[in-house]
Amino acid sequence: MKLFHAPNSRSMRIVWLLEELGLEYELIGFKLGEKAMREPQYLKLNPMGRVPTLQDGDVTIFESGAIVEYVLARYGGGRMVPERDSLEFADYLQWLHYAEGMIMPQVNIIIVETLFLPEEKRNPTNLARAQKLLNKSLQAVETGLEGRDYVAGEFSGAEFMTGHACVVAERLGADLSDLPNVKAYVERLKARPALQKAMAA
Amino acid sequence: MKLFHAPNSRSMRIVWLLEELGLEYELIGFKLGEKAMREPQYLKLNPMGRVPTLQDGDVTIFESGAIVEYVLARYGGGRMVPERDSLEFADYLQWLHYAEGMIMPQVNIIIVETLFLPEEKRNPTNLARAQKLLNKSLQAVETGLEGRDYVAGEFSGAEFMTGHACVVAERLGADLSDLPNVKAYVERLKARPALQKAMAA
Repeated sequence: MKLFHAPNSRSMRIVWLLEELGLEYELIGFKLGEKAMREPQYLKLNPMGRVPTLQDGDVTIFESGAIVEYVLARYGGGRMVPERDSLEFADYLQWLHYAEGMIMPQVNIIIVETLFLPEEKRNPTNLARAQKLLNKSLQAVETGLEGRDYVAGEFSGAEFMTGHACVVAERLGADLSDLPNVKAYVERLKARPALQKAMAA
Repeated sequence: MKLFHAPNSRSMRIVWLLEELGLEYELIGFKLGEKAMREPQYLKLNPMGRVPTLQDGDVTIFESGAIVEYVLARYGGGRMVPERDSLEFADYLQWLHYAEGMIMPQVNIIIVETLFLPEEKRNPTNLARAQKLLNKSLQAVETGLEGRDYVAGEFSGAEFMTGHACVVAERLGADLSDLPNVKAYVERLKARPALQKAMAA
């Protein structure tokens, strides 16, 4: 497998996944925003010029949530996916999708408004709205973590999505003071060697 | 199954899905933004006070992409999900996740900037940026539809996500003039009785 990756991007999720599974892969590194990501050759693989993209034989696939599901279905051997008839199966799917549906849109706006835009183009209303919604979206994770260490009970594929989003939110300075479950969850994830390796990749 | 639904929201995706599968369900209707969606009783089911939420026996699940996967896994009997070893399986997963990852963040901003905010609070820069990114995100769908009627070949669960997002984008006035595949795709989907029923629900 070849993984197209840039540090501090969503592709970290897939490095983390592949490391947790102990799979072999070749890392093809970009810097976020670099020109090579917009070259025709790469746009053939990923028309948005984004990372991650995974190549696995004949298969080319983008979207991190899709890659998590694909890799677990093909190479997971049942690991990190709750049984289809368990109650946890629904939680797994929910938190697998929740990251992009609810948390990351706010994270994106915060990154644009604090890092990408030149100061004179920043909009404090956008930023304040996103920070408020980010906090609200993390409160749902707080509830979901009640009485459990991971969002679907045991460590699962959902961690690469909602767990990663929580780690990123904390790094962006999200206020976790009233979210003790999320705070402990982020620490628990950051203690995993596979995530540490992904953060350094 | 009980489906919490509001017209013109993402829950339309699930009505459409349940109609395509011919499953029985009870529809519990909200109006978007109405107070009942923020009552403690509903927030216990969906802490963000959003729709859709699906209740199925002991299971409560939100996030439309998750509900699509859950319903197809439990009640689809193999319909609308490509075989795990097919090339189409990766496309299916990719377009299932693409809607929320790439298209809907722009759709959300356009809705906020043209409908939700009072005129004096609207920001033309936000709107222009979102419209540009929306068009770009649909160009990737245009490429994905090359030589096929649906995003993963045969009609699949990915239609409820990326297909729905294309239908919504068209309704919001996205410029499809240079996207003939997307335009034909939207027409193809809108011709389906199950989607028509969902749009009227």
